[in-house]
Amino acid sequence: SLLVVRVAFTSLWLPTVNTVRAMSSPGGPVPPFTTLSISRPANHITHVELHRPEKRNAMNKAFWSEMVDCFNQIAEDPECRVVVFSGAGKLFTAGIDLMNMAGDLLQPKGSDTARISWYLRRIVAKYQETFSVIEKVPLLGLPPLVMYLLSQDAWFQVKEVDIGLAADVGTLQRLPKVIGSRSLVNELALTARKMYSDEAKSSGLVSRVFPDKEALMAGAFEVAGEIAARSPVAVQGTKINLLYSRDHSVAEGLQFMATWNMSMLQTHDLMKSAQAALEKKGPKDVPFSKL
Amino acid sequence: SLLVVRVAFTSLWLPTVNTVRAMSSPGGPVPPFTTLSISRPANHITHVELHRPEKRNAMNKAFWSEMVDCFNQIAEDPECRVVVFSGAGKLFTAGIDLMNMAGDLLQPKGSDTARISWYLRRIVAKYQETFSVIEKVPLLGLPPLVMYLLSQDAWFQVKEVDIGLAADVGTLQRLPKVIGSRSLVNELALTARKMYSDEAKSSGLVSRVFPDKEALMAGAFEVAGEIAARSPVAVQGTKINLLYSRDHSVAEGLQFMATWNMSMLQTHDLMKSAQAALEKKGPKDVPFSKL
Amino acid sequence: SLLVVRVAFTSLWLPTVNTVRAMSSPGGPVPPFTTLSISRPANHITHVELHRPEKRNAMNKAFWSEMVDCFNQIAEDPECRVVVFSGAGKLFTAGIDLMNMAGDLLQPKGSDTARISWYLRRIVAKYQETFSVIEKVPLLGLPPLVMYLLSQDAWFQVKEVDIGLAADVGTLQRLPKVIGSRSLVNELALTARKMYSDEAKSSGLVSRVFPDKEALMAGAFEVAGEIAARSPVAVQGTKINLLYSRDHSVAEGLQFMATWNMSMLQTHDLMKSAQAALEKKGPKDVPFSKL
Amino acid sequence: SLLVVRVAFTSLWLPTVNTVRAMSSPGGPVPPFTTLSISRPANHITHVELHRPEKRNAMNKAFWSEMVDCFNQIAEDPECRVVVFSGAGKLFTAGIDLMNMAGDLLQPKGSDTARISWYLRRIVAKYQETFSVIEKVPLLGLPPLVMYLLSQDAWFQVKEVDIGLAADVGTLQRLPKVIGSRSLVNELALTARKMYSDEAKSSGLVSRVFPDKEALMAGAFEVAGEIAARSPVAVQGTKINLLYSRDHSVAEGLQFMATWNMSMLQTHDLMKSAQAALEKKGPKDVPFSKL
Amino acid sequence: SLLVVRVAFTSLWLPTVNTVRAMSSPGGPVPPFTTLSISRPANHITHVELHRPEKRNAMNKAFWSEMVDCFNQIAEDPECRVVVFSGAGKLFTAGIDLMNMAGDLLQPKGSDTARISWYLRRIVAKYQETFSVIEKVPLLGLPPLVMYLLSQDAWFQVKEVDIGLAADVGTLQRLPKVIGSRSLVNELALTARKMYSDEAKSSGLVSRVFPDKEALMAGAFEVAGEIAARSPVAVQGTKINLLYSRDHSVAEGLQFMATWNMSMLQTHDLMKSAQAALEKKGPKDVPFSKL
Amino acid sequence: SLLVVRVAFTSLWLPTVNTVRAMSSPGGPVPPFTTLSISRPANHITHVELHRPEKRNAMNKAFWSEMVDCFNQIAEDPECRVVVFSGAGKLFTAGIDLMNMAGDLLQPKGSDTARISWYLRRIVAKYQETFSVIEKVPLLGLPPLVMYLLSQDAWFQVKEVDIGLAADVGTLQRLPKVIGSRSLVNELALTARKMYSDEAKSSGLVSRVFPDKEALMAGAFEVAGEIAARSPVAVQGTKINLLYSRDHSVAEGLQFMATWNMSMLQTHDLMKSAQAALEKKGPKDVPFSKL
Repeated sequence: SLLVVRVAFTSLWLPTVNTVRAMSSPGGPVPPFTTLSISRPANHITHVELHRPEKRNAMNKAFWSEMVDCFNQIAEDPECRVVVFSGAGKLFTAGIDLMNMAGDLLQPKGSDTARISWYLRRIVAKYQETFSVIEKVPLLGLPPLVMYLLSQDAWFQVKEVDIGLAADVGTLQRLPKVIGSRSLVNELALTARKMYSDEAKSSGLVSRVFPDKEALMAGAFEVAGEIAARSPVAVQGTKINLLYSRDHSVAEGLQFMATWNMSMLQTHDLMKSAQAALEKKGPKDVPFSKL
Repeated sequence: SLLVVRVAFTSLWLPTVNTVRAMSSPGGPVPPFTTLSISRPANHITHVELHRPEKRNAMNKAFWSEMVDCFNQIAEDPECRVVVFSGAGKLFTAGIDLMNMAGDLLQPKGSDTARISWYLRRIVAKYQETFSVIEKVPLLGLPPLVMYLLSQDAWFQVKEVDIGLAADVGTLQRLPKVIGSRSLVNELALTARKMYSDEAKSSGLVSRVFPDKEALMAGAFEVAGEIAARSPVAVQGTKINLLYSRDHSVAEGLQFMATWNMSMLQTHDLMKSAQAALEKKGPKDVPFSKL
Repeated sequence: SLLVVRVAFTSLWLPTVNTVRAMSSPGGPVPPFTTLSISRPANHITHVELHRPEKRNAMNKAFWSEMVDCFNQIAEDPECRVVVFSGAGKLFTAGIDLMNMAGDLLQPKGSDTARISWYLRRIVAKYQETFSVIEKVPLLGLPPLVMYLLSQDAWFQVKEVDIGLAADVGTLQRLPKVIGSRSLVNELALTARKMYSDEAKSSGLVSRVFPDKEALMAGAFEVAGEIAARSPVAVQGTKINLLYSRDHSVAEGLQFMATWNMSMLQTHDLMKSAQAALEKKGPKDVPFSKL
Repeated sequence: SLLVVRVAFTSLWLPTVNTVRAMSSPGGPVPPFTTLSISRPANHITHVELHRPEKRNAMNKAFWSEMVDCFNQIAEDPECRVVVFSGAGKLFTAGIDLMNMAGDLLQPKGSDTARISWYLRRIVAKYQETFSVIEKVPLLGLPPLVMYLLSQDAWFQVKEVDIGLAADVGTLQRLPKVIGSRSLVNELALTARKMYSDEAKSSGLVSRVFPDKEALMAGAFEVAGEIAARSPVAVQGTKINLLYSRDHSVAEGLQFMATWNMSMLQTHDLMKSAQAALEKKGPKDVPFSKL
Repeated sequence: SLLVVRVAFTSLWLPTVNTVRAMSSPGGPVPPFTTLSISRPANHITHVELHRPEKRNAMNKAFWSEMVDCFNQIAEDPECRVVVFSGAGKLFTAGIDLMNMAGDLLQPKGSDTARISWYLRRIVAKYQETFSVIEKVPLLGLPPLVMYLLSQDAWFQVKEVDIGLAADVGTLQRLPKVIGSRSLVNELALTARKMYSDEAKSSGLVSRVFPDKEALMAGAFEVAGEIAARSPVAVQGTKINLLYSRDHSVAEGLQFMATWNMSMLQTHDLMKSAQAALEKKGPKDVPFSKL
Repeated sequence: SLLVVRVAFTSLWLPTVNTVRAMSSPGGPVPPFTTLSISRPANHITHVELHRPEKRNAMNKAFWSEMVDCFNQIAEDPECRVVVFSGAGKLFTAGIDLMNMAGDLLQPKGSDTARISWYLRRIVAKYQETFSVIEKVPLLGLPPLVMYLLSQDAWFQVKEVDIGLAADVGTLQRLPKVIGSRSLVNELALTARKMYSDEAKSSGLVSRVFPDKEALMAGAFEVAGEIAARSPVAVQGTKINLLYSRDHSVAEGLQFMATWNMSMLQTHDLMKSAQAALEKKGPKDVPFSKL
């Protein structure tokens, strides 16, 4: 089964979930979404589940725009401080649903190459937006994302080269900035070979691997809980500046950081946290306001 | 023995070959090349061998311009879809042939420092071109390169600091973008210590290590075969966009990718591949036209 | 105990020293420094020790400006070719001395938010300078820095998120460029969990781990000795171009490198080294002049 | 009267219209817009009029989101090839409607500085989007924009410094890239002095000045007609690459251009135009398809 | 007489002063400065005068470091909101005082080219700092600078090419970003021809020209007064973001601007100014606090 | 008649020559060139003439590669210090010779869009190289270029939009960096209107206009003589750093400049020039060695 482009939406942790208990959404996707199921399993934590289990969570046309809508909604929800993203059922995703999208990609309308090109560029830009929305949130305020890779039998694959195209929704741009070895990135992207969870861990693609799905989801929610308990001012500032650093020189990053913190250091959270530290308490003992 | 600058030409896989059977070029270098031997061991695969075994493949003056000529020729060969690069004999390369190049570098002509500087800058730029030509091919259409590191006893070394200079043909620029650990890069470049194949693997410099030379060459040609069998439209698009991503932000990379694929998605290869996938066939069962 | 921001000053090797014998400065900090102790344990090697053992080497207000003064002094010392940086006593550093700095950060003066912001931005920029001074030395001529992580029980922690702020003296900018795995960087920075020496090694944060403090310091001075013995022209050129490469594209790095070496290749050190190599000697047998 | 930030939305021509006949929208704004009036005065030309004449076209809260909606709609209209943007009544715009926006900017809710900062950053980003939407259209396909400055008595002013803030919706970013003299930009932005039409012309802010409003609108529609008559493939490609060039080096711009034209040169418009040129016809005699 | 490099320090207005009444410093340079005279001719305005009239204000060794010290002092002076920079006596400056600096530049010590290069690079970097300090103040808080070109007989000249070197303290970097015509920049820098005040005005190098020295100084102080009267929060924010925009893309500039204003919009100056505007008052009628 | 893309090759002065006496090449193009005529009208000055007067100097297929060959040859000629570029006969150039190139551009071979795209991208890249070669010479050592616009009746035109394409050999990339007004650039590129010599002068496209062809050529050679007489170390350093500055931030430009001059300041030309200045001589009185 195909597991294409999965890496594209992993600005933070990135992992695969082969088997996930649909704890959060017994009835499946929340209207008006048909491919995503959203729930709040714990305080300040939003669980977004890719939910087309009968199609192995393949990404169809609806998915591309629902992702944008979903994360724009989350960005407006001050109660949400961290998002867990996973796939419903045994598989994270089978990748692009080629059948569903064949009309768009394989038979674009028109006879002039330039006009077909124009049309395709807008389609690709729209699909890219699906994953970029998660990062663009610096301007919107989206909380960080938690994802985890499951078990020995999970694998990751950049499948596009097998279907005659270069991956264009973000894999070739983000994967080399997520793992350290360019040799490995090249091999994965040019041969479409599978990478199993062991290699995903040793290469740095994911930071932890779990023995089975329950441990995985428990682990993901535990990390999410750690983040949700901390000052949202500190968490958002950290996330936004990490993203900024990825695409800028150190000197540029420092200038942005100093400009960011000239206001953020004035937060009450700093005093509250310092007070708690003096009293030998941790961040979980401090009630932070919404951001 | 010296193994300088080897990493410089490793935009894709990078490995060392200590012992390679000169299967491809029984008579040695193809005229007009005196340092390179070129052959076609399989369909769509070009094998370029650094071939001065009596000098441990040290890079002399002829090598610098032959590399540029060789890869420019390959870029014009529509039958070539992937290149395997290795060294003839037991050693990949002993690095720069200092004796051969002493006249250029150690005793440049002239008495005015500025004019000697001007001369040296052009020499260095010319040597840099030797390795950059492999990457510049985005505009030329050069296929990707496969190289693999051999066995336990192979090693890699950035030797320049031992001869009183900073490595200037690309090692200091590319090595930090190839492996993840900056501490390791610093140590290798500042102390000139050897890195053996185990560390080359764990650090991500190479993605695989083989027990002996036959396994190595077999492995290299197997990967080359995987790439050669796939759509050249997909392979070249992947390679060009991976190189572009290395030097640009994610947002820049996505914009370039969308612009690239507005034409490349119109390829017949996409339909052929989708058709094959429906018929449970793989890319190797599909005949793709030359690019 | 807190081990914040430690990664910020690790442009080269980076390591933690939990237990270090104050061999170099029996009497503690050299006037006029109150937080740093400086010595010359061997030829061309300067040892800078963070020296507030009674406070677990926490960084107080004096530290921020003493670091800048200290490294500016070192940059003027032609006898120094490499710096070893460590912490006095059992711990490398407990991080920011919150109590000492509370006045500056928690209770900035003034009632207008914009004016407080202006004040805080200058404070943060000044603190950033503490660690950037080590890198800026390209223009000043500071020698490279050696640091090493100790033993099984040493750990590293990005603690800021626990006290309600985003780390702003360089951790979020430099850590992602030092280790390859972005998943790991995100997890460390967003959850403030500890990373022990094993993970520090496997993730590439440090290139070696030692069993105990004596082995650690011996190892650090051995590497320092390797560097100090080499041509300062080669070492500085390598360091400056590695830093340049970190923040530039490969093409930009090559152009800078060619411009750098148009003068540096004219050094006598090249001929001396080539001569030594012919005589089967190593760099340690060659006397190089001061830079 | 105030004429703030007018320069912000002038990615192409930029001019002020002090007196404009509301020829296109006798009844005022088209629902659902309350601040913009949209019409099609000629084939392929869309006229967008800032239409709050009773408030001297001051920009109120509704304006900020209506602009985004309006230009997103235009981007979906294949019949529109060029947009003329002007202000209804005697004045182009009085700038920001401070009274209307006072609640947002002067009295943001909340007591924690960091949280107010977060809120304000999202507001500013949203306002910036109002003008950036006109440029972002490279991905959307928005046609170029025509605007013209009127007469001797028209003036332009960067007013923000007079109300205690730095202009933040794009003036400080775009003005220096629109006119050549940085001295002039600095003076305008730091002293808020008025610049009249003569200086706007000689400084390059606008390319033409007209004696009165009728001549102005006639001139704007004439230029719009010139653009609308040409191949939309050529016009969009020119616009997108000019914008790309503004923010990139020449080498980057050339690489993007070559990638763009690898598909766009395959348009039938090229053959049609070449044919027309042979027949001594101009672009206006050639019927081009929609893009 | 030589008028080299004058353009280098003109991040804001740039002008030449051939004849300036030493109104501000009757006794000449203020100790400890020997080349600069500093005074406060009006509230919030600092006048810095290049003061070696007997040497036509040629820049000697003392000048290079005094400039840095002087502007660092000004950056710490909260009463100063704008700086006027001019030359004492009839001439602004004759440029570099070659005789005074001959020892440094023409006869550097040492026999190894690499070591002389290293020494020269530090000298040049130090001289560059002289002019960069005026811009770096974004981190320090330096107020903007006012300078004005005098009269018909004033001229500007990039003289370096006549003495055998490429201008290296900032002219080649800043001049092309100050005036719009690259043809003119090239001609000035490659032929060293004089540019008189008329051309300086029409090319955008300066924004105004005055008939004689009294009018010039009156004009400079009038503009300085305009700036000094405005909110320092607005003025500094404008200056810093204009400088940032010069070196960044529009998108980067907008992101920085939004981050900057998320705190700066919280200033009381905004409400005070809005209140004043309602009462038909201008910024000069509003008392703003120090920054 | 068409005057397309003329601006593309004007990294230094840029002008049009409608009527030029073929003084330099009585017999026409020098073999092996069929479109270019090369001569040495004075010491150190090379005159390159676009020479297809019967075709109004239209750029045909031969032209594209001859330009590259010609300037590569010049780069190897140490006697040449400056190049004058003009067109033979009455017209500078009619632009692209559409008829000659129709086969390449209008009827590319093949039926797969991706493969035609690939072919076209290489063609465009090759044409771009024609003009980029003049700038790339920083690595090659090409002298600066002088060109001048003639008289009242000369005009400049970006013609591509009239033939259905976006200009792709450099106009859209370089024109906005040559003249200051973006409004004017947009208008020229989107409407293809003619710009006459007066506007070319006032907009900064050229720095001088001459009354007739003799005055023009005399003026061009006079400026060329000024440049040729100066130190080639100073001239090349100035040219290379001006080009570098165009595409980099001020801080980047300063760092490159300091690195450049660390060797170039060691030239004997500096001492020679200083000596001459003391003796009240000018650069023309000093004999400088070849570079």
